[in-house]
Amino acid sequence: MKIGQKIDTLLTPIPVVDEDVMATNIARVQAYFDEMDRDFRPHIKTHKLPSVAKLQIAAGARGINCQKVSEAEVFAEEGFDDILITFNIMGSERLERLRALNDTIKLRVVADNEVVVDGLSAAFTGHEPLDVLVECDTGAKRNGVQTPDEAVALAMHIHESGGLNFMGLMTYPPKSGGEPVAERFFTETMAKLAEKGIDCPIRTFGGSPSLFNAHLVPSATEHRAGTYVYNDRSMVREGHCTFDDCAMNILTTVVSRPTADRAVIDAGSKTLTQDLIGFTDFGYIRGYPDARIVSLSEEHGVIDLSACEDKPEIGELLRVIPNHTCVVTNLFDRMVFHRDGMVTRIEDVAARGTVW
Amino acid sequence: MKIGQKIDTLLTPIPVVDEDVMATNIARVQAYFDEMDRDFRPHIKTHKLPSVAKLQIAAGARGINCQKVSEAEVFAEEGFDDILITFNIMGSERLERLRALNDTIKLRVVADNEVVVDGLSAAFTGHEPLDVLVECDTGAKRNGVQTPDEAVALAMHIHESGGLNFMGLMTYPPKSGGEPVAERFFTETMAKLAEKGIDCPIRTFGGSPSLFNAHLVPSATEHRAGTYVYNDRSMVREGHCTFDDCAMNILTTVVSRPTADRAVIDAGSKTLTQDLIGFTDFGYIRGYPDARIVSLSEEHGVIDLSACEDKPEIGELLRVIPNHTCVVTNLFDRMVFHRDGMVTRIEDVAARGTVW
Repeated sequence: MKIGQKIDTLLTPIPVVDEDVMATNIARVQAYFDEMDRDFRPHIKTHKLPSVAKLQIAAGARGINCQKVSEAEVFAEEGFDDILITFNIMGSERLERLRALNDTIKLRVVADNEVVVDGLSAAFTGHEPLDVLVECDTGAKRNGVQTPDEAVALAMHIHESGGLNFMGLMTYPPKSGGEPVAERFFTETMAKLAEKGIDCPIRTFGGSPSLFNAHLVPSATEHRAGTYVYNDRSMVREGHCTFDDCAMNILTTVVSRPTADRAVIDAGSKTLTQDLIGFTDFGYIRGYPDARIVSLSEEHGVIDLSACEDKPEIGELLRVIPNHTCVVTNLFDRMVFHRDGMVTRIEDVAARGTVW
Repeated sequence: MKIGQKIDTLLTPIPVVDEDVMATNIARVQAYFDEMDRDFRPHIKTHKLPSVAKLQIAAGARGINCQKVSEAEVFAEEGFDDILITFNIMGSERLERLRALNDTIKLRVVADNEVVVDGLSAAFTGHEPLDVLVECDTGAKRNGVQTPDEAVALAMHIHESGGLNFMGLMTYPPKSGGEPVAERFFTETMAKLAEKGIDCPIRTFGGSPSLFNAHLVPSATEHRAGTYVYNDRSMVREGHCTFDDCAMNILTTVVSRPTADRAVIDAGSKTLTQDLIGFTDFGYIRGYPDARIVSLSEEHGVIDLSACEDKPEIGELLRVIPNHTCVVTNLFDRMVFHRDGMVTRIEDVAARGTVW
């Protein structure tokens, strides 16, 4: 694998990222937020690569979003000095590392319960104060306080806790249609906080699929999104982009044609992952729209060709657009970038595998 | 993370493997095959660790089974000298590496079509001959020739090709009930080959879930299985073992309790994977049999507690038995082993991420 190599000569299975498509994706989304005069904070989970985050910052993004302390450490080491970690952080060893990060960069975290806030407060009292946002559940049914009243109570608790600054509200909305709920949650909470004389300067909204609906949450000051940088099949389904806007393609080879209607490729769950993300098959094969990747084992992908007029031959190279690009990134130690099918760079996926 | 550390003080999420449970699993399966006087060849995909494969060999296993050339390279480097690669191998660079392996160890591969055989023959003509088995589809609907007649035709083609020795038949059966089909496929093919005067010394059967039915395929000379070494929830479902026989547990922390019936853990798809393997939820939580991990995002696991009498608190450490252990191994750079809850060793997962 080397710079200048044609990507169709790479050993398969392998994900490759088109530099130009990625650049267009970055520019398009940044322009939308610039137009609206809203801060945009890319989530690094999609690429896990400082070099790509630098392109996002150069385009105008304000800082980055990480999900774990270990990710933030990788990016802080590479010079990123404005990081939001959108996860409840617990445990003394992790809190010590968080404190070290907060001493060197502009750091913010979230919390959705008092146990987490009390842990943060114990770790940061007597040190550089930590900025904390309250995570709100606006319909995604994951983390988050359930009501504006709960948000206010937790904000008050943060406000009154040593070592912490209450800085605002954060939500990760449901895949689609969450904007009115988030807007109501934010504005109601802000009004209640204002009554108590508590500032709420940041309201951060997020998600890739509904990204171009961010203007429907006018109370938000910031948007976070990750997947848009590469795009994937789920983003096409949500109407966010076309298949041509998918910068990451997975190159895979047909290794068997056991029957007239079955092909087997060398991309299995170790490449494509079992992440259906609402689909009933495991990726979109470019050039074979009627082929369906119906099952995966670790190194095999089984394709049903029964609806296809043209059928791929043994040895043929296929390009698959994955259902969900972020989880593919996490499986590969290196990511290959290309322009017009020639390798431009090969990057170690610096924050791959970090869950701590 | 260090030797002697209590596992309940490790940063979560993290998979840990109980040395004693693993040793019992290895001994139990080896005893079954010893009793039957059948070769047993463990598949390394489950652990991807030379140190564990050495325990399997020490117990009496005959060689190892890899799925990719890159895996075989890792294990050959560590001294393993009898390796079967059960995948159609294509491409000049990979075939060169295969040739290098075949020059140093006892190597066997499989093929299910003439394109692959012709590639192998071109690469090995004039070199140390390569042993090739014909892969047969006995109901798993993945790779494999479809009928004994196809098997014979491909065996003849291998037999007549330069650089190759036809050595027998291989099948990866369906999850359950495949034994009679495999037995019929093997015996019919052997009879037809005998008529043509072609030796078929190896018939290798495989799979973990139905492992203890291997005696129902008396024509087999060898069995291959991987998952049995750690076991997992799917193996419990198939009646192969109990939850107490699952050597790999995933330690994870409850980070949120947003509602009375919802908990969120720090193990998401980057830890548990989205591999449902026939279940409708993402793992079995020890001590909370009525809790269901209903959805995963990359770093969050959402648990439905509505059926639970006792409910875990924020900060509580949970032990999850994954649906499928092999895919978890592929996500972590290091694996932690323990005995009675104290870390015994921390191993780099040497063959993690290898797909080439």
